[in-house]
Amino acid sequence: MSAKPVSRFPVPDLKSLPEDVRARILSVQEKSGFVPNVFLALAHRPDEFRAFFAYHDALMDKPGGLSKAEREMIVVATSGANDCQYCVVAHGAILRIRAKNPLIADQVAVNYRKADLSPRERAMLDFAMKVALDSGAIGDADYEALKAQGFTQDEAWDIAAIAAFFALSNRLANASSMRPNDEFYLMGRVPRA
Amino acid sequence: MSAKPVSRFPVPDLKSLPEDVRARILSVQEKSGFVPNVFLALAHRPDEFRAFFAYHDALMDKPGGLSKAEREMIVVATSGANDCQYCVVAHGAILRIRAKNPLIADQVAVNYRKADLSPRERAMLDFAMKVALDSGAIGDADYEALKAQGFTQDEAWDIAAIAAFFALSNRLANASSMRPNDEFYLMGRVPRA
Amino acid sequence: MSAKPVSRFPVPDLKSLPEDVRARILSVQEKSGFVPNVFLALAHRPDEFRAFFAYHDALMDKPGGLSKAEREMIVVATSGANDCQYCVVAHGAILRIRAKNPLIADQVAVNYRKADLSPRERAMLDFAMKVALDSGAIGDADYEALKAQGFTQDEAWDIAAIAAFFALSNRLANASSMRPNDEFYLMGRVPRA
Amino acid sequence: MSAKPVSRFPVPDLKSLPEDVRARILSVQEKSGFVPNVFLALAHRPDEFRAFFAYHDALMDKPGGLSKAEREMIVVATSGANDCQYCVVAHGAILRIRAKNPLIADQVAVNYRKADLSPRERAMLDFAMKVALDSGAIGDADYEALKAQGFTQDEAWDIAAIAAFFALSNRLANASSMRPNDEFYLMGRVPRA
Amino acid sequence: MSAKPVSRFPVPDLKSLPEDVRARILSVQEKSGFVPNVFLALAHRPDEFRAFFAYHDALMDKPGGLSKAEREMIVVATSGANDCQYCVVAHGAILRIRAKNPLIADQVAVNYRKADLSPRERAMLDFAMKVALDSGAIGDADYEALKAQGFTQDEAWDIAAIAAFFALSNRLANASSMRPNDEFYLMGRVPRA
Amino acid sequence: MSAKPVSRFPVPDLKSLPEDVRARILSVQEKSGFVPNVFLALAHRPDEFRAFFAYHDALMDKPGGLSKAEREMIVVATSGANDCQYCVVAHGAILRIRAKNPLIADQVAVNYRKADLSPRERAMLDFAMKVALDSGAIGDADYEALKAQGFTQDEAWDIAAIAAFFALSNRLANASSMRPNDEFYLMGRVPRA
Repeated sequence: MSAKPVSRFPVPDLKSLPEDVRARILSVQEKSGFVPNVFLALAHRPDEFRAFFAYHDALMDKPGGLSKAEREMIVVATSGANDCQYCVVAHGAILRIRAKNPLIADQVAVNYRKADLSPRERAMLDFAMKVALDSGAIGDADYEALKAQGFTQDEAWDIAAIAAFFALSNRLANASSMRPNDEFYLMGRVPRA
Repeated sequence: MSAKPVSRFPVPDLKSLPEDVRARILSVQEKSGFVPNVFLALAHRPDEFRAFFAYHDALMDKPGGLSKAEREMIVVATSGANDCQYCVVAHGAILRIRAKNPLIADQVAVNYRKADLSPRERAMLDFAMKVALDSGAIGDADYEALKAQGFTQDEAWDIAAIAAFFALSNRLANASSMRPNDEFYLMGRVPRA
Repeated sequence: MSAKPVSRFPVPDLKSLPEDVRARILSVQEKSGFVPNVFLALAHRPDEFRAFFAYHDALMDKPGGLSKAEREMIVVATSGANDCQYCVVAHGAILRIRAKNPLIADQVAVNYRKADLSPRERAMLDFAMKVALDSGAIGDADYEALKAQGFTQDEAWDIAAIAAFFALSNRLANASSMRPNDEFYLMGRVPRA
Repeated sequence: MSAKPVSRFPVPDLKSLPEDVRARILSVQEKSGFVPNVFLALAHRPDEFRAFFAYHDALMDKPGGLSKAEREMIVVATSGANDCQYCVVAHGAILRIRAKNPLIADQVAVNYRKADLSPRERAMLDFAMKVALDSGAIGDADYEALKAQGFTQDEAWDIAAIAAFFALSNRLANASSMRPNDEFYLMGRVPRA
Repeated sequence: MSAKPVSRFPVPDLKSLPEDVRARILSVQEKSGFVPNVFLALAHRPDEFRAFFAYHDALMDKPGGLSKAEREMIVVATSGANDCQYCVVAHGAILRIRAKNPLIADQVAVNYRKADLSPRERAMLDFAMKVALDSGAIGDADYEALKAQGFTQDEAWDIAAIAAFFALSNRLANASSMRPNDEFYLMGRVPRA
Repeated sequence: MSAKPVSRFPVPDLKSLPEDVRARILSVQEKSGFVPNVFLALAHRPDEFRAFFAYHDALMDKPGGLSKAEREMIVVATSGANDCQYCVVAHGAILRIRAKNPLIADQVAVNYRKADLSPRERAMLDFAMKVALDSGAIGDADYEALKAQGFTQDEAWDIAAIAAFFALSNRLANASSMRPNDEFYLMGRVPRA
């Protein structure tokens, strides 16, 4: 559908990229069947590309702690609050898949307080949204609310760090007019036969 | 998937409803294949039900002026700004169908400034969002911006009136925790064979 | 005093109006001694006129539930928050009359938290203002606060629906620069001999 | 009508006050026919009382420059924006009298952009509102807009200083729940025979 | 370093000033070693100058009640919230000296919730910030929170009045682009031998 | 002065850290004479530590493009807007040193619009602040304003990326109550003999 630009900044040829950057992109392509545009949009800055995905992986693929679906909920809720089209659409797709729930991403993106959430998930997103929108006001009461829902201090860091990382990601995507791939919109919506 | 409540207010039996209200609901069901929850959530107040849908039809089905897709864009953009899950999900489905575009609703709901819009559509949504979010500041310059994109004064009223009507609708849906039907989420996303 | 325009949109001649619209206007004129400008400003759109006043009457003239003065308090408080000159001035007049209190409208319009209100009225307006200004955040605690002041669930709907309807009305009035009639400013301020 | 408290802070007996404070109060009473509550509410702090009214008089009674009605418009518009009941009601009365216009105060208090203002008055209030609400963003363009309407640099200071003084006054009145005298509500609304 | 202008408004010659204004300025110069620019920036309006400093002294030099350091904390916190460069820099210097703490001013200016404060100081600044930023919402609970930390009603007035006075001062400084003297930046940072 | 905690999260012993993390910390200590607390506060998460500083170095130490002082201005201005004590205090110190200007950091932190900036620096910070505070609204006009001041597209990315990275950093520091080292407060304020 779209030959629309991926970004308002340059998108280099795969051939011109450093070997490790190209390898990462090819590996994602093999796994997903397409190259999510964030990989292309950041590739013109290889050092930033490497740091961005190293940080992303450290938070999103870290073993233990929050479930994969919980992490994606944080991304979708805070990206919605930051009006970030790329992150809502791309991570909405991942959330649907991780949560095996075709409805949850749209619910969380529009208004997480009206979404089908457990009290634990609700507390997690209350905290994440405060990190995203008013981090200077975070205090003891916010940590106690997490603890009351069974979150460890280590998981509290995870929530804060994911919300903080996507504060960065949302701003890069918004400033560069990063375009979500058409493929994301339908992913996880139709049960596989 | 959901036997989740349609609203935090009572939802009457179809049988107990006044004839005209029931007829409207059955007619919608026949046409859509299901009853959108807004019809059930408002039915406990038949006079308000009648006025609500009369107003809705006067604005959304009025011949001439804005296209059907343009009207739905206004609904989706302003409902996103008002964090209204019901209206974003339900009217997002209608927008996809009216615009024959499976991507446009998610784009407009998250950030209309990054959506695939013509300059005319962008001006229309700039005006609609000001009606939704800061109507007290509307002045001559806002009308001139519409005119510069070819909108008539009559169409300016349509834009304002649709944004104003969904200011009402969004608040009713939010206050009642009106739940979008599961059917809406996938409508208009998959091309019909 | 004013030959100032009633609206930035067309105001039709009474003679050119559909019979029912003209009849409604004449009936209001007979009862009030003048035609409130909202009737003239909406008349160029007869279907919207009919729906608007049907909705208005369903909420504001409904028997039982909130008192007439309470309903007008909701209108004045939320219209003040929305910077709507027409609604503050016109409904301020009606509130003074309904409440038999020449001071209450100005108090509620400027800052309802400083007005001469009972705890019940204060709770009612806290809820109405949240519907007006941040409806996406409404939750169980808001309904419990109403219940603690003796409001039924049915009355909670009334409060929400009135605040929601004037969210519409305020935006129409602001977008059209609807002018309050000079007559409203003094109504209900001077005790009748 | 009201034996409601003038302030949540102590209101001293006239007899217990320092001579100059009492004299000022008696002189106001003689001139107005009643003692505006701001005089009573500040009297428990004679030094602050003296400084407050000295500042007030320096700005509001200064010969030349802005007209008396223009100065009161600044007070009413910014006090409305600060939700200050005392100042809107009391200075609304004075504005009606100074401007010989029974409608202007309510218009300016609710939304000065919809009030019956000249372009000069509109520019004056645009500047005053920016001083009241976002003074850190004031820059050259704001001064140029004043100049374009014929305001001198000296008058620009007057506008800023009046908006700034009532930023103080509004906060004192709000924090102390200062109550406007009942007399103010009707003043200037009825033409004198 | 700077021959940068003190204000965008005229700064009169000392010689041209009324005797009492000049005397005040010379006395400050003798005590501080330089003339803080606020004295120069207000001198073109002698009546306002007199009222401003009379008010300032009544609040900041009043015997008893809040400590001098506490008063300066209120000034620095609220001036930071109002983006007022002059007041943060000048009163930051005074706070460092009064509190004999070289770190406290920068902490309070950026985010008082993260500063090294006692619970009493934190409650004081919570109240002061509400006066500065949302005075129309102040109510009983705010006074009770002060009382719980041992503040008297008289001290509550002090907090409110200081926050209110600097609401005025911040706006004057912002509107006039009042420049802090270079001397302030280093004062109180280096322990005296 | 402070044995105050560095963070509300665990701060590991240097000895327990992975070799590369410890080496980075020791190298910073050697260069600066102390270990900035951000290194200690992030060390409990070695993978995030590595990614954070790799990203930081890619943006802040990248050869060419923005000057070092310009980059630090972006950090200080946006960190002030995000109420981040650690980043304002620590990067304020670095800014003073890089710019060889003892005043600039406090000016930029409080209100960059009143700071001693060139038009180029002002445009750079206008853009950076929009990335920090309202990135969803960034559009062509924002890029054109940068271009008009001579910024290349590549430098526009730098500005956006630095503002975005510190959106992350500010949120981590706020959520963890990261404490700035006492050493930062005085750095760059006193000219070296």
